[in-house]
Amino acid sequence: MALLVQKFGGTSVGTIERINAVADRVARGRAEGHDLVVVVSAMSGETNRLIGLANEIMDEPTPREMDVLVSTGEQVTIALLSMALQKRGVDARSYTGSQVRILTDNAHTKARIQQIDEQNMRGDLNAGRVVVVAGFQGVDEYGNITTLGRGGSDTTAVALAAALKADECQIYTDVDGVYTTDPRVVDGARRLDKITFEEMIEMASLGSKVLQIRAVEFAGKYNVPLRVLSSFDEGEGTLITLDDEADMEQPVVSGIAFNRDEAKLTISGVPDTPGSALRILKPISDANIEVDMIVQNVGADNRTDFTFTVHRNDYKRARTVLEQVASELSAREVSGDGRIAKVSIVGVGMRSHAGVATRMFEALSNEGINIEMISTSEIKISVVIDEKYLELAVRALHSAFELQGPVNEA
Amino acid sequence: MALLVQKFGGTSVGTIERINAVADRVARGRAEGHDLVVVVSAMSGETNRLIGLANEIMDEPTPREMDVLVSTGEQVTIALLSMALQKRGVDARSYTGSQVRILTDNAHTKARIQQIDEQNMRGDLNAGRVVVVAGFQGVDEYGNITTLGRGGSDTTAVALAAALKADECQIYTDVDGVYTTDPRVVDGARRLDKITFEEMIEMASLGSKVLQIRAVEFAGKYNVPLRVLSSFDEGEGTLITLDDEADMEQPVVSGIAFNRDEAKLTISGVPDTPGSALRILKPISDANIEVDMIVQNVGADNRTDFTFTVHRNDYKRARTVLEQVASELSAREVSGDGRIAKVSIVGVGMRSHAGVATRMFEALSNEGINIEMISTSEIKISVVIDEKYLELAVRALHSAFELQGPVNEA
Repeated sequence: MALLVQKFGGTSVGTIERINAVADRVARGRAEGHDLVVVVSAMSGETNRLIGLANEIMDEPTPREMDVLVSTGEQVTIALLSMALQKRGVDARSYTGSQVRILTDNAHTKARIQQIDEQNMRGDLNAGRVVVVAGFQGVDEYGNITTLGRGGSDTTAVALAAALKADECQIYTDVDGVYTTDPRVVDGARRLDKITFEEMIEMASLGSKVLQIRAVEFAGKYNVPLRVLSSFDEGEGTLITLDDEADMEQPVVSGIAFNRDEAKLTISGVPDTPGSALRILKPISDANIEVDMIVQNVGADNRTDFTFTVHRNDYKRARTVLEQVASELSAREVSGDGRIAKVSIVGVGMRSHAGVATRMFEALSNEGINIEMISTSEIKISVVIDEKYLELAVRALHSAFELQGPVNEA
Repeated sequence: MALLVQKFGGTSVGTIERINAVADRVARGRAEGHDLVVVVSAMSGETNRLIGLANEIMDEPTPREMDVLVSTGEQVTIALLSMALQKRGVDARSYTGSQVRILTDNAHTKARIQQIDEQNMRGDLNAGRVVVVAGFQGVDEYGNITTLGRGGSDTTAVALAAALKADECQIYTDVDGVYTTDPRVVDGARRLDKITFEEMIEMASLGSKVLQIRAVEFAGKYNVPLRVLSSFDEGEGTLITLDDEADMEQPVVSGIAFNRDEAKLTISGVPDTPGSALRILKPISDANIEVDMIVQNVGADNRTDFTFTVHRNDYKRARTVLEQVASELSAREVSGDGRIAKVSIVGVGMRSHAGVATRMFEALSNEGINIEMISTSEIKISVVIDEKYLELAVRALHSAFELQGPVNEA
């Protein structure tokens, strides 16, 4: 008997049949005696349909009206799921973001949650009802409808769990948990029973797109135990919690993340004076291009080489901007590579283990893979390599850090 | 420069193209300097699509969740129309029923408006904005979403006009006004420039389904001038106002209404004792069958004949119920006719003109049409006739009361 917040995404509620399946699962949880708050997204395809209607009218619809429009998607789902529960004899009541009163700032289409009034939900829970809440949406202090941006339903679920001090926030999705790496690349990839918030953030931002990173950060901040499970299969999923060293034999590395959507740009022979990094990167960010890794080395004769990575789609634009910058700074040349990949090892265990980097570089070297860039943080090491070696590198690292096998196996 | 409430129904906003056309029209009104509140329905087909989803889940969805579901239809339209106005440089802001605060009772799916907070709308109007309101929906005192029932958008428009003391409430629809009778039946039918609330109610309830009768009653009660116009053509439409004899040469009869969906039932030789009408009609109403006309005559030997009409779809069920009643009351027999039609003449002018009924009966008699039932009110006379004479009767009456011709022509 626990208080659980369960979140089902667009694919899990994409058809009436699937909504019925979600209702079956929620009804089982209720029969086991749990108090349940269920957060749902719009039926898959619905948000895009609504955005399509808006774009038929104008290219850049006003954000306030966009929120009024797309928030109807989740409102449809909460009504249908509540009906499906009632049909099963489970008392349920739906809430829009405004009805809960999920108070946000007024940054339409990307609002941030400021406060949650849990009183109405608490009343329903005490009366034995399942509370069904529209994800992704809230209301500002003037009563305007706001949305949290794409994927914001995960954030809604975590925020409700924090406000209600729920025992667990369960995110149901189309995978059955967080894996040591992508099982499509490495046969021996295995589901992790547990992972820390920090590791999950590094894994998510590096391309293992199971959870919205913002939701994980939120869960970490308020210490809400977060579990990723499959909507379609049974299983315990992966629990994401605070780092609790007493609790587990800490592996050095928890997982291998990777990203093949990157491109690399280098501006060489830049005069090494204060502010040169700013003068290179500001025009890039002014062009709305996001920069991922940045590496700078001091070279000979007071000149330096400056390298960074961007999303592959931004490569050509970034290169044009950079060539303009190079001529302004009297840099020697601009070079780049649109066919690179990033591979990272992630694990809180590396904090207390020396030689992790060495082991990584050795594994890659053994396979004859050249490392083009290196970047490190406290719990991850990322390298950029030629894209064609990506799968080989991931498999080599997965094996070198002994991620296969029965350790932590479910 | 007037304050106008304009309502556009589902057909008028049924596609993006039509929403753009509505935006053009509203923008013109704004350019003329009017203050505008625009009420819209769901895009045509949308409400039925949503009801279809609910019915896939359960046969009788809970009314509260039904309201959460179907109210999304108008919410989509207010957002899209506001965008279309903004695209035209017209400042506009959308409101759901809950955001206006259209307070209703909690009779989900058929709620009644109790109070309207006009403060927010007034603020936007003062700031030069067009206010776009979702029709058909409101909110109860606990924040639950309610709907007013089918066609309730007309009621929303009238209620807003009353609350804002608007100069006129304009209902845009797919006809260009109220006609003396159905132009498909009588070539010479003409649009009325003016009609009274009372006449409009009789016309509407008798089958000229231009406006929701409830909206007309509401407009009459609060004396809101109501105008019916075409969304697709230009024109002045028909103005529905209080009876103002000084203002116009009152015609005796304003229009001919008719209804071919009726059936007639007679129970003969009922003992003429107090309460017999109740004993006949209560079982009918208990079976959820609505009764329209009722006629009773005292016959010979303290027995009476009792005749009433019902919707043709209810004829068989009503007959079964009535045969049961007949045996309980020891009535002589039950007879009926499923192929009748009702024709009515309507006009506030008949109050002050004698001989209107005579003129009606004479016109029908001249065509050899037998009258099977007669029912009268202060401003209308209805007769039931054999269905096959319906068109003939309507044309004869339209001509007898001189409804053709240039009088009142636009």
